[in-house]
Amino acid sequence: MRFGLFGGARTSTGEQPSDSQQIHEFIDYVLEAEDLGFESVFLVEHHFTGFGQISAALNLLSYLAARTRRMRLGTAVTVLPWHNPALLVEQAATVDVVSGGRLDLGIGRGYRHTEFAGFCMSMDEAEARYQECLAFIRAAWTSPGRFSHHGTYWHYDNVVIEPAPLQRPHPPLWIGANSEASIVKTARDGMNLLIAQHGTPEAVGTKIAAFRHAVEAAGRTYDPFSAGVTRALHVAHTAAERDRQHELRIRFMRNVQDLSLPPSGPVAGNHFQGHGDAENMRRMTETDALIGTPEEIVARLKVYEAAGVRHMLLMDVGGSLEALRIFGREILPEFREPV
Amino acid sequence: MRFGLFGGARTSTGEQPSDSQQIHEFIDYVLEAEDLGFESVFLVEHHFTGFGQISAALNLLSYLAARTRRMRLGTAVTVLPWHNPALLVEQAATVDVVSGGRLDLGIGRGYRHTEFAGFCMSMDEAEARYQECLAFIRAAWTSPGRFSHHGTYWHYDNVVIEPAPLQRPHPPLWIGANSEASIVKTARDGMNLLIAQHGTPEAVGTKIAAFRHAVEAAGRTYDPFSAGVTRALHVAHTAAERDRQHELRIRFMRNVQDLSLPPSGPVAGNHFQGHGDAENMRRMTETDALIGTPEEIVARLKVYEAAGVRHMLLMDVGGSLEALRIFGREILPEFREPV
Repeated sequence: MRFGLFGGARTSTGEQPSDSQQIHEFIDYVLEAEDLGFESVFLVEHHFTGFGQISAALNLLSYLAARTRRMRLGTAVTVLPWHNPALLVEQAATVDVVSGGRLDLGIGRGYRHTEFAGFCMSMDEAEARYQECLAFIRAAWTSPGRFSHHGTYWHYDNVVIEPAPLQRPHPPLWIGANSEASIVKTARDGMNLLIAQHGTPEAVGTKIAAFRHAVEAAGRTYDPFSAGVTRALHVAHTAAERDRQHELRIRFMRNVQDLSLPPSGPVAGNHFQGHGDAENMRRMTETDALIGTPEEIVARLKVYEAAGVRHMLLMDVGGSLEALRIFGREILPEFREPV
Repeated sequence: MRFGLFGGARTSTGEQPSDSQQIHEFIDYVLEAEDLGFESVFLVEHHFTGFGQISAALNLLSYLAARTRRMRLGTAVTVLPWHNPALLVEQAATVDVVSGGRLDLGIGRGYRHTEFAGFCMSMDEAEARYQECLAFIRAAWTSPGRFSHHGTYWHYDNVVIEPAPLQRPHPPLWIGANSEASIVKTARDGMNLLIAQHGTPEAVGTKIAAFRHAVEAAGRTYDPFSAGVTRALHVAHTAAERDRQHELRIRFMRNVQDLSLPPSGPVAGNHFQGHGDAENMRRMTETDALIGTPEEIVARLKVYEAAGVRHMLLMDVGGSLEALRIFGREILPEFREPV
């Protein structure tokens, strides 16, 4: 199994350092992760949170391209409805070029009510805007020479998008997909799969098997690294610390829920349907998150490994270098693959 | 006098290397410039040229933030009408944070017909879009807490733009201004001044004097580094080489003109009014550009220095490391200021 960071998360709890300090601490965290053997980092893109989640992910990745040596540099996810498609493709390709071809471009529709409200955009447009931007991305990266695009939201005439990315035909596109139908479509479209933070190891295993089957049915070789699973990581050596980490995780989930659900409740078709009540959130942290001692976490990861997971993205909400080092020294070596 | 690069220009002449190779060569060029004593780099933003001018300037600056140590990192200019204002402010602030507060944000309206045509945007909207985006930038960087914006083109409700930039209240804004009225307004608005590639040393001196006077009339101390003048640099040791460099410069000017003028001719109010015929372009290269031996260029620069220029941005269309090194070793030391 190989490991990456799912990153830029930040809690709203307690005293906040400055935005600059927080970003520089996160950079140090990513660099330490690379030294410890983490092989990818996937940055979120979020807006208007008031607690400093990463907003300009492709800019931070451009910086990290110079500071890292071999890590894959990803987004999870770039929210297509917010972006001018041409500028987005130029930015992504620039990251790919300066990083020597290390960009993994995760894309999505957006799911947070507060973001759509901030941009004064209806969530009902998310799917159509996503599809239109994705069509533009494909045209930009596969058209020989100039092309035009006339959609519902964007118009371009006779354009060529530069620079060309280094990876050909283009950087891998990663999609968050949950239902079997959308997982199969992701595979058929030649895209990689992001599996979000929730669901039992068995449920994750079923999704990965469906993805693998669909990739092979399409006549391609399945790359086990092409399916990334995100899980919360909280190292806790004592019962008291375990309780505190569960609380921290639940507080984070509640926070995301508050940012995401419209006042009227969950929206049909939106991938975020809420976490339910406190008891349900507690149950989810028990089944989904990696909370415990290093030995317990190794045991949980072995279950994921047996379920077919080969690329695990860790979301360390606590975000301490100490927890990262424990993971790198005591947990990661248990999964080191022969080169 | 202090020197910077005005950059990312690329000619369409001859065999083109790949986009990636071109960008990496440009990066090497910037790093060498820093070593030679250049103190700033201002990147262009251009789209759809087909010859690889830099499109995602803020991404390349994010990368350069990690590779450079003390250079100021600027744009000249970020074209506001293309950008989602919230995303732009997030991106710019991220560059400022990762660079340790070295961003200089040059902003403009855009002037190239081919870019407006590519974005399917009327040039008639450029001014209004520019003003609206600028108003948003100011609100984002000076509002205490959340704010809303309801303009002609963009709407935002109850947003806070993160991260905060490191420079307070915000990174310097640089504006290209030509008329005395707009130069005075630039000074009154607390912005820095970019003077474009054309005009005699006397004309440049008049503009700088007007800017200085307006800054002091507003009760502020004039910083001579706050007015940047761009000039083309072409080192030529022989008469044949001088002819070749004049031709190269004229070809570049003609290229920009072809990209900029609408088929119907110059647009009133647009800052680009064309370069005239071949004879006029030849005259402009004689009066405006720095073409010649190192001794001749030193003499030309002394004239600019006497006219009040203290921050000279060099645009080396030939773009050779060799010319840069000659400048750094034989010309720049003549202007080194006591620390």
